Amino acid sequence: MLLNKRISILDFIKTIKVDIVLISSYAVVVGIFDQYGFLDKISVPIGVTAVFGTAVALLLGFRTNQAYERWWEARIIWGAIVNDSRTLVRQCVSFFKRGNDSYEALVAEMANRQIIWCYALGESLRKLPFSHRVIKYKESNKTEAFNIPNALLSEHSETLLKAKKKKMVNDFQQVQIDSTIARLCDSMGKCERIKNTVFPKAHSLLIHLIIYVFATMLPFGLSDEYLAVEIGLTIGIPIIFIAIEKNSILMQDPFENQPLDTPMTDLAETIEINIKQMIGETDVPEKKKPTDYYVL
Amino acid sequence: MLLNKRISILDFIKTIKVDIVLISSYAVVVGIFDQYGFLDKISVPIGVTAVFGTAVALLLGFRTNQAYERWWEARIIWGAIVNDSRTLVRQCVSFFKRGNDSYEALVAEMANRQIIWCYALGESLRKLPFSHRVIKYKESNKTEAFNIPNALLSEHSETLLKAKKKKMVNDFQQVQIDSTIARLCDSMGKCERIKNTVFPKAHSLLIHLIIYVFATMLPFGLSDEYLAVEIGLTIGIPIIFIAIEKNSILMQDPFENQPLDTPMTDLAETIEINIKQMIGETDVPEKKKPTDYYVL
Amino acid sequence: MLLNKRISILDFIKTIKVDIVLISSYAVVVGIFDQYGFLDKISVPIGVTAVFGTAVALLLGFRTNQAYERWWEARIIWGAIVNDSRTLVRQCVSFFKRGNDSYEALVAEMANRQIIWCYALGESLRKLPFSHRVIKYKESNKTEAFNIPNALLSEHSETLLKAKKKKMVNDFQQVQIDSTIARLCDSMGKCERIKNTVFPKAHSLLIHLIIYVFATMLPFGLSDEYLAVEIGLTIGIPIIFIAIEKNSILMQDPFENQPLDTPMTDLAETIEINIKQMIGETDVPEKKKPTDYYVL
Amino acid sequence: MLLNKRISILDFIKTIKVDIVLISSYAVVVGIFDQYGFLDKISVPIGVTAVFGTAVALLLGFRTNQAYERWWEARIIWGAIVNDSRTLVRQCVSFFKRGNDSYEALVAEMANRQIIWCYALGESLRKLPFSHRVIKYKESNKTEAFNIPNALLSEHSETLLKAKKKKMVNDFQQVQIDSTIARLCDSMGKCERIKNTVFPKAHSLLIHLIIYVFATMLPFGLSDEYLAVEIGLTIGIPIIFIAIEKNSILMQDPFENQPLDTPMTDLAETIEINIKQMIGETDVPEKKKPTDYYVL
Amino acid sequence: MLLNKRISILDFIKTIKVDIVLISSYAVVVGIFDQYGFLDKISVPIGVTAVFGTAVALLLGFRTNQAYERWWEARIIWGAIVNDSRTLVRQCVSFFKRGNDSYEALVAEMANRQIIWCYALGESLRKLPFSHRVIKYKESNKTEAFNIPNALLSEHSETLLKAKKKKMVNDFQQVQIDSTIARLCDSMGKCERIKNTVFPKAHSLLIHLIIYVFATMLPFGLSDEYLAVEIGLTIGIPIIFIAIEKNSILMQDPFENQPLDTPMTDLAETIEINIKQMIGETDVPEKKKPTDYYVL
Repeated sequence: MLLNKRISILDFIKTIKVDIVLISSYAVVVGIFDQYGFLDKISVPIGVTAVFGTAVALLLGFRTNQAYERWWEARIIWGAIVNDSRTLVRQCVSFFKRGNDSYEALVAEMANRQIIWCYALGESLRKLPFSHRVIKYKESNKTEAFNIPNALLSEHSETLLKAKKKKMVNDFQQVQIDSTIARLCDSMGKCERIKNTVFPKAHSLLIHLIIYVFATMLPFGLSDEYLAVEIGLTIGIPIIFIAIEKNSILMQDPFENQPLDTPMTDLAETIEINIKQMIGETDVPEKKKPTDYYVL
Repeated sequence: MLLNKRISILDFIKTIKVDIVLISSYAVVVGIFDQYGFLDKISVPIGVTAVFGTAVALLLGFRTNQAYERWWEARIIWGAIVNDSRTLVRQCVSFFKRGNDSYEALVAEMANRQIIWCYALGESLRKLPFSHRVIKYKESNKTEAFNIPNALLSEHSETLLKAKKKKMVNDFQQVQIDSTIARLCDSMGKCERIKNTVFPKAHSLLIHLIIYVFATMLPFGLSDEYLAVEIGLTIGIPIIFIAIEKNSILMQDPFENQPLDTPMTDLAETIEINIKQMIGETDVPEKKKPTDYYVL
Repeated sequence: MLLNKRISILDFIKTIKVDIVLISSYAVVVGIFDQYGFLDKISVPIGVTAVFGTAVALLLGFRTNQAYERWWEARIIWGAIVNDSRTLVRQCVSFFKRGNDSYEALVAEMANRQIIWCYALGESLRKLPFSHRVIKYKESNKTEAFNIPNALLSEHSETLLKAKKKKMVNDFQQVQIDSTIARLCDSMGKCERIKNTVFPKAHSLLIHLIIYVFATMLPFGLSDEYLAVEIGLTIGIPIIFIAIEKNSILMQDPFENQPLDTPMTDLAETIEINIKQMIGETDVPEKKKPTDYYVL
Repeated sequence: MLLNKRISILDFIKTIKVDIVLISSYAVVVGIFDQYGFLDKISVPIGVTAVFGTAVALLLGFRTNQAYERWWEARIIWGAIVNDSRTLVRQCVSFFKRGNDSYEALVAEMANRQIIWCYALGESLRKLPFSHRVIKYKESNKTEAFNIPNALLSEHSETLLKAKKKKMVNDFQQVQIDSTIARLCDSMGKCERIKNTVFPKAHSLLIHLIIYVFATMLPFGLSDEYLAVEIGLTIGIPIIFIAIEKNSILMQDPFENQPLDTPMTDLAETIEINIKQMIGETDVPEKKKPTDYYVL
Repeated sequence: MLLNKRISILDFIKTIKVDIVLISSYAVVVGIFDQYGFLDKISVPIGVTAVFGTAVALLLGFRTNQAYERWWEARIIWGAIVNDSRTLVRQCVSFFKRGNDSYEALVAEMANRQIIWCYALGESLRKLPFSHRVIKYKESNKTEAFNIPNALLSEHSETLLKAKKKKMVNDFQQVQIDSTIARLCDSMGKCERIKNTVFPKAHSLLIHLIIYVFATMLPFGLSDEYLAVEIGLTIGIPIIFIAIEKNSILMQDPFENQPLDTPMTDLAETIEINIKQMIGETDVPEKKKPTDYYVL
């Protein structure tokens, strides 16, 4: 997630450098040819260019909106994960019967597994290798599955079952906690859906194509008097459209380990702090200050 | 679902080849007539063409948005099917009483039927003949109904009832699992709704019509100096609009066994792997690498 | 609901025939006057016409979108009715205690009443007289109320109460089935909301007005050289806008017994078939093939 | 709510009469000055006016959409109130134990209070004095609170508690009815949210401002040949934009006792009839035919 | 939240004063240079400027819509907080067993903590120091946590547990109240999500950039005859676009202690009054009349 500070413009420009070079070369070449009268006969009425530009702007508007909604949906899902993580632990703390010897141990088990689950989900969505603590957990618990976060939820159910057998939760409470686990399972599946569903490729390509067609038409609709102005416009306008398009592309995939990502690691840290305080642990990590123009 | 790799442009162009031929012929004919002065008197002010082009772009923008939402809704529903399939099996595993002799058998029954349900739903939405394993299940269970997936959900309830009679689940747990089955029933119905509801036909036809009207008007608003440019624009711009329209049409029907489909078979395989690992089965199939530019 | 086959263009044109006549007459009259130089001094810059045309296109775009959403919402509600009808019957079949003598009778009572409810709701939304079987049910059950579908839901509750008294359902199950009935009550109310809420009239009139203002301005922005072209454009463009508007108007009211309707009768038949198979009835009606370009 | 009959155009025009007078005066003055050559040097290229007009149309489009959604949300909330009122009474009728002496009394108490609640909510949202029957209820029950509808919901809970004490409802049923009351509480709060949240003022003012800027620029972009046409356009186009804006303003506040309101009184009457029939009351009021072009 | 009265235009203008100065200076400089013929050769066809202006308007339209939706979502969340606060207290009042000695004390404890929670949430979202009464509560209850509102919800669960131990609530009722607390936890998390998620920075910057590019191009598309008109348009149009953009920026962050905020303090006061009346407290504070053009 980008923070509200000076972002690195350079980083952004790097992502569209190929387009910048292509369009600039074209503009300069056409501009010079035009100057020497080679392309005098070719002229596209500015009205046609205008229609096309409007079409580009419109489709970019809708596309940006769809990308924004995908980005925002990802953020909503992780917001729900924060809430349900807290709710799960609050329910364990207050539902499990206090007198029992295993009370502390079982609550801590649920709480710690929930923290691990958040980190593991973030890492598997980003296709990163699991971090040290997730691996440690996996090894000490012998968790083996293709989908680790899903396996962790099954282990939650097992712990709950253990609590039930010790008569530490009653029937309603088991079902109520199970509903919270089901909501976490839902959120997990929604993240996977966004991760695994490629934004319609043909749609993206068509928008990219019409920006380039627009860029090609543009110089033939401009007057040829003043070379610098013509070249400036021929470069500037398409680049802005491409920048807007690129920005959508970055927003539409929010789990790719890049600056515009949903800040899953950051949120997992917040969840960790909240949960540890809820179960009365004293060794609570402090929130790190972000050192970059974004948090992951 | 298209994958994030080079898509087959050729396949896409094939879907609009009739339009390409029609528009190209028109452009060439009008261009040549124009050259010889037959159509000198007919001229449509570029402003009118521009308005029309803007209207086309706008209506295409909204239409693409509606198609995208339909496509995304289908994907959301199948995401929910993934989640609820996992939740159903997790609930059976942890709710059914362990000591009982039938525990393994009943859990496996639910799990396998849920896997079959996913395949059967995908196949019946695509109006394909049922695959080998679905037919085998149907025959060994004597399942007979017009709507097989619905019948499978009824069989889920029967198994649940069996478990209840053996006192393996209590009242709450039965109701909680029943809620999960009801959500699966909901998702099934939502898929059927999208499948069976034709996108408003008159609306589609009108948009198609105005693209053609625009294509017809276009050459009369262009200057006639340079034949190639005129013909190029008269062909290029309408084709782009038609490509965008075609893409919407492909997106709006996501259960048609074509590249832009919701990848139901692929998702069913994922569900199968997850479920089999959850019930501790060792013979888990591996996920196949996609060999094409899309998965179904 | 329109089917995916050749729709009757003639039927659609009939709905806008008054507008076609009006606009055509105007175009011809203005065109002829123009030809004879009566209106030479009146000229509206094409730029103004263009702004206006864009405004028309934009407002039509939003309006079509709102109409589409209303139409789609109606379809979603009926999709939910299909799902909840199946869920209700599935719950009765599996929750009611089997040993009891009244089991068959009570399940059949619920199932049949649910089928009747679907037909009755569709017919009362369309303000049609009740069909033969609904009347027969009403008479044999002495159901008397202004709102028949609502009364049928109350009778569902009564049957449920009977089952409870015979100890055929326990407390949870009663509450769970009651939730399903409450969802059906919700869907019914949502249909009534769409039926009874007129699309904002002033909003519709304003859009209609600006299309006519646009049609009036249009010929004065066109060149007068070639009469046929001028008349063609003056007729064609406004007619297309009016066709789009008309189509929205037809979509926004989905319970009016016309081709674009939510296919309530068709869905009720599907529900009937599904339900009858679920309760093991052998006399299941077959789905009729649609004979027209739409189903109701 | 406007009905689907001839609306009073006059009433609508009255709401924008100040704007009509202002714009007409301006148009006439500029037109005459122009005629006498005073403003010859001032000319705004029609292209700039066109951009501006497009911006106006676009922002109006979005604004109308937001107003429409607010209006439709209000209607959805009241639709939910209709459904939950019916569900509440149906639950009381079927959950309360029949044998008990107080059965009739308690059901009637809930039903009547629910009817009163609907009227009271509508009247307090419209900031009207309470109607006769609400006042009568308040007096006979000594209900005292700033927020009367909220107090009525608390009284629902008290009645439920009474039923519980008499062992007329069990634990589940109490919780299930309580959920229905919680949904009514939700709907009430949603209405208050819409009522109390002013549509962003600065946003409204900016749109109003740009319409006026557009109106100011317009005559300088038109040709001056034919005075009547210039004045006509200068008056007509801005007035249409203002009418669209005004219509949004009327839609965005749906609880203001004006024609475009959510028809709360009308819906309360429908609820009253439904509820009275559900509890078997014979003295059911008849629905009045609307006498005006709208119902409140 | 802005009230429906004369807003302070001056306050708004102050927020964009830098842009106003920049654009005005530019317009004057270019205007004067133009007058003396220095920039004669540079001319941008008005068509290109028009496309660009349309793109600006479009992207501003979408951006305003996204900001509006964020602002409205914040308002919806706080509406839900109002409803669930009332529901929580209503449930405590009617579910807790009356005969018990601690009844009054426990209900008051829940009610007061809920009031404190609302104030504490508002203050921590605005990053303000806690108000006197929140600090007093924290001190007397020894509440220590990074996230105070979350800690308060945990204390709600503790009180509920106390009530359970005294047999004042049964299992269902505990679970039902717990669901209400879970919804409050959800709303809290949703607020934090909106607060902590920066609106996509790159997206904002691009829109800001294209407004400035448009402002730069604008004077070269205007005729140079009348200096005052040229300068007026060059200043006026971009300023309006910037004002619309600024307004979106203010709307998109609704918890920043500025006039367009969600009125959290005001809503907390409403909740306080409602809750105190519900538990029969006599010392109910009166709602203050707003003294400014907004409430916080």
